[in-house]
Amino acid sequence: MNIAARHHPFHGMSAFPLTPADAAGRVDAQTLSLLLERLCEAQVDSIGLLGSTGTYAYLTREERRRAVAAAVECVGGRVPLIVGVGALRTDDAVDLARDAETSGADALLMAPVSYTPLTQNEAFEHYRAVASASALPFCVYNNPGTTHFTFGIELLERLSHLPTIRAVKMPLPAGGDIAGELAALRERTDLAIGYSGDWGMVEAMLAGADAFYSVLGGLLPYPMLAIARTASAGEAQEARRLDDLLQPLWNTFKAYGSLRVMYVLLEALGLGQAQPPRPLLPLDARARSEILAAVDSLLSDR
Amino acid sequence: MNIAARHHPFHGMSAFPLTPADAAGRVDAQTLSLLLERLCEAQVDSIGLLGSTGTYAYLTREERRRAVAAAVECVGGRVPLIVGVGALRTDDAVDLARDAETSGADALLMAPVSYTPLTQNEAFEHYRAVASASALPFCVYNNPGTTHFTFGIELLERLSHLPTIRAVKMPLPAGGDIAGELAALRERTDLAIGYSGDWGMVEAMLAGADAFYSVLGGLLPYPMLAIARTASAGEAQEARRLDDLLQPLWNTFKAYGSLRVMYVLLEALGLGQAQPPRPLLPLDARARSEILAAVDSLLSDR
Repeated sequence: MNIAARHHPFHGMSAFPLTPADAAGRVDAQTLSLLLERLCEAQVDSIGLLGSTGTYAYLTREERRRAVAAAVECVGGRVPLIVGVGALRTDDAVDLARDAETSGADALLMAPVSYTPLTQNEAFEHYRAVASASALPFCVYNNPGTTHFTFGIELLERLSHLPTIRAVKMPLPAGGDIAGELAALRERTDLAIGYSGDWGMVEAMLAGADAFYSVLGGLLPYPMLAIARTASAGEAQEARRLDDLLQPLWNTFKAYGSLRVMYVLLEALGLGQAQPPRPLLPLDARARSEILAAVDSLLSDR
Repeated sequence: MNIAARHHPFHGMSAFPLTPADAAGRVDAQTLSLLLERLCEAQVDSIGLLGSTGTYAYLTREERRRAVAAAVECVGGRVPLIVGVGALRTDDAVDLARDAETSGADALLMAPVSYTPLTQNEAFEHYRAVASASALPFCVYNNPGTTHFTFGIELLERLSHLPTIRAVKMPLPAGGDIAGELAALRERTDLAIGYSGDWGMVEAMLAGADAFYSVLGGLLPYPMLAIARTASAGEAQEARRLDDLLQPLWNTFKAYGSLRVMYVLLEALGLGQAQPPRPLLPLDARARSEILAAVDSLLSDR
């Protein structure tokens, strides 16, 4: 397999939408489809369904199956659909991977969710069991902000040898040296390397990351696509100018958590009224005003 | 209510047994009852069912209900039964609290389990919803090693004003100043203050903690009761001597995690063959030998 084929669909700007649901955790398939239709129209490079922003951790197996079915029906092959299958138990994650494949997902994504902290080898065996449960290309979801699991480079190298594991979704490096990290990862693995943390997208793409997994892109794809495409084309100055326009929004991501901000924007865009799953709470009026001010220019030409 | 009544049943040595289950997560009620019978015979001060060591996070609502029902039937009021009701979603934790009360639990315990990190206020509202769903006395489970949530003193103070919240289970303070922390907490709350982290039990009880929540006590109650009772009686020298005998075991707790060590001991004691829930893996032969050597003297007069 050549590198391009191996990296499909883990390249470019991947959009991670919310999964709107009611207070009891029942997925609102209609609003979800509305969000997905916008992403297809914008021609994002892939859709990350049931990622952290898609609140996968808070949804039952049945609701996750409903979300995937609705997404497959809506997207209809126009954009590759990457589906999050993380779960605390290995057998549950295996079931979710099989469900996603059966329902028509194009690829899988999984974070090493844990309660009792996992060893490196436990994480490896967990990934091996879940990745081998389906034939779909698989992305390792390195998300220490929610899982508190730290991947060693040796673990990523071992994982890269599993036949379906093709990609890793990395957090922005603490020291900011994305180029150095990319070089180190490429020396040890042939994984497609993507990043998340929207405020770092411009520098990650300029540094040559294969993909970027974007929260804002799941709701407002155009500004993120513009940054991703100018950055990928090496137009650093223009990419940074576009990113600068979003700095006030990135400040709210850092202050309130991007997930909570997305629920405010969902309503502000007139797309739906969903709230985050409790115990997460809707943001207060002051935070909402700050967010709306930060995106004022974006909403006016949505 | 006077302080003693307010602190019941959150005082003395509370034993946290495993919840033996098969690979599919079905609770082995017979082995569980065997473990609980040993705790009743040893006259532990309370039993912490479905704590972290009881793998609550890995069990379904139905299996947790089965475990509580089996425990209530076995214990039959001989020892107060504290039941863990933590869940990622507030509505699920509310259901678990109601289930536990209906099944005959004496008290509840809950950690602020999260995926998306919670704010202090989100944790407060989560506790308020769950604590008010039952009339049972409630212990706040401060377990940053698994939840990665940090309780501020202001949050603990707010929680202590909720009518059923009576106690907090604290991790050992990073700096080691248990007496200082107890004084600070007592200035701000009237909660019964207990600790966990078995290697710190002797110093926590000598410092005047109201309770200690013990992992080893769930499987080998006698040595932990001996330490707790000599320490509570102020016999510092004897308490420390008894604790010193367990130092090799505490080293294995720190190296492998106490939960994994408990599964080795369960089998070594001839009490059952359960394994930890995957992705957690059984320890290898070398670790098992180290653990067995560490408890050799304890097992010979179990």
